[in-house]
Amino acid sequence: MDYIEEIKKLKDQLSFAEEIEIPDQVENIVIAGMGGSGIAGRIFKEIYDKKPVLTVDSYDIPEFVNHKTLFVAISYSGNTEETLETVKKARKKGAIIRAITSGGILSQEVKNSIIIPSGLQPRSSIGYLLVPLLRGANIPENEFKEAANNLETMDNNSFYLKDVAKGISTGKKTPVVYGTPPFREVAYRWKTQFNENSKILSYSSYFPELNHNDTMALENDYRKDDFYFIVLESKYMDNKIRERIRITSELCKIKFNIVSGEGESKVSQLFTLIHKGDYISYYLAKERNIDPRDVSIIEKLKKELAKSDINK
Amino acid sequence: MDYIEEIKKLKDQLSFAEEIEIPDQVENIVIAGMGGSGIAGRIFKEIYDKKPVLTVDSYDIPEFVNHKTLFVAISYSGNTEETLETVKKARKKGAIIRAITSGGILSQEVKNSIIIPSGLQPRSSIGYLLVPLLRGANIPENEFKEAANNLETMDNNSFYLKDVAKGISTGKKTPVVYGTPPFREVAYRWKTQFNENSKILSYSSYFPELNHNDTMALENDYRKDDFYFIVLESKYMDNKIRERIRITSELCKIKFNIVSGEGESKVSQLFTLIHKGDYISYYLAKERNIDPRDVSIIEKLKKELAKSDINK
Repeated sequence: MDYIEEIKKLKDQLSFAEEIEIPDQVENIVIAGMGGSGIAGRIFKEIYDKKPVLTVDSYDIPEFVNHKTLFVAISYSGNTEETLETVKKARKKGAIIRAITSGGILSQEVKNSIIIPSGLQPRSSIGYLLVPLLRGANIPENEFKEAANNLETMDNNSFYLKDVAKGISTGKKTPVVYGTPPFREVAYRWKTQFNENSKILSYSSYFPELNHNDTMALENDYRKDDFYFIVLESKYMDNKIRERIRITSELCKIKFNIVSGEGESKVSQLFTLIHKGDYISYYLAKERNIDPRDVSIIEKLKKELAKSDINK
Repeated sequence: MDYIEEIKKLKDQLSFAEEIEIPDQVENIVIAGMGGSGIAGRIFKEIYDKKPVLTVDSYDIPEFVNHKTLFVAISYSGNTEETLETVKKARKKGAIIRAITSGGILSQEVKNSIIIPSGLQPRSSIGYLLVPLLRGANIPENEFKEAANNLETMDNNSFYLKDVAKGISTGKKTPVVYGTPPFREVAYRWKTQFNENSKILSYSSYFPELNHNDTMALENDYRKDDFYFIVLESKYMDNKIRERIRITSELCKIKFNIVSGEGESKVSQLFTLIHKGDYISYYLAKERNIDPRDVSIIEKLKKELAKSDINK
């Protein structure tokens, strides 16, 4: 299966029916996960705000975690070292523990784990990882359907997104991805897709925060022509943010390449913005004659780490 | 006053005696602030974990905010548009509101604001902005004293940090700053100091999260020689993180320029790591013949935004 077939599976993931229920008595939610799995928690944290949501992306968990904490561990493989350690710690503190995984140790450690299909790259399973959280937040079914329809349209005509990939690879540019609320973290998703699929450095930030720091560099940087600036817009963006984008571009004389979400609902805007980054990072890998699927260096690193633990 | 004199004031800020008390009945803490003011909340969130802490860096606040929320607004000028709007919204929801500011509208809006000295750049007042939060978390006085002593030592001999600045400016490199828990957000502080003081692009990430994405790019990026990689270490860093740094550097054949915190206590490690970034970004501005204090483009942007609001 070519990697593009894996990318095209996203639309089907939106009908995944499992749900992480948020019990009333829960006072806060902690979501643990790394990289392509952790991104689900980051995105959810920005969308769901009825209770405090914190994300964890290391070995430790916050001291406040207790029996009133819903602790959700997300690891596609089920064997992520950092995430497994957080589960042990959350259990000691009596948290209500749920998990989303395709198997591995995590599926054995956490009863009633939500089991998702295996055989994908974690980053290609963003639908499976995120949908159970969104369903727990009671997002209406028609939003998922609209999103799936719009993803299908994109899958049938994604070639125009090659131009963005060419814009980056010509001149070997470094993509900078600027997000906008309420989908700031989609910019981080794009950054990680450029890293893993295209094997190039990339960084993300977001409006309005970047107007307090990056803006100074956008005007004056000695190498700004080596960067390619992308702004992710959505119809849920505040007009004040729209003004900020326009004024920043004018004042700093920077060309922003605007990419917009599609559709009416939040879920559709969210997933179409994610999916455009999937395609662009894929096409960029192809431009570079690089295998978008390969993440062997991450696997080597895990092996070296395991060896080093034995030697300690 | 040369800007370096402003940088050297940090040590004196550590004896600032004001405190944001955290009442027992508070269930969660929300800290609002942008850029050089917002960084205080980001850093605090990583150090204090007895209750959930969330940071806000836009116009909106989470729905869960209520009378059991301690809402801390931080704005050096007291006139930050985003932060002032969050205060209005937090008030409507009945939150317990505190503020840290040098004056402006915020000092009028929030009774019993902690008033800090005016006349500095917000980013030079990180001590004033952060110390009241740390004191509220009951960090012992001797930690602040140790930190102040170690900052003074650095102020008397910071010249060796010029070498790092030269390493960046020679070859016009883009600094990438990698943080490590429990001071991940200090890497973000460095990024913003490179933006505002040195007027160059920069980005930050942190271990172990970056091992799940950046690592792929570190091996394969087409322009990685144009970047200068800095890793911020501390004595509070887990040994597993130390191993990750070593193995990542070896596998990806990347030279990490290691910068370490000084002293025994967490407060000393934290502020000395911050301060090294202050100096390096200052020296880099000097290398580039750029005024580190100037942030006129950010001011212009604020003016344009104000005009545009009128026209709406």
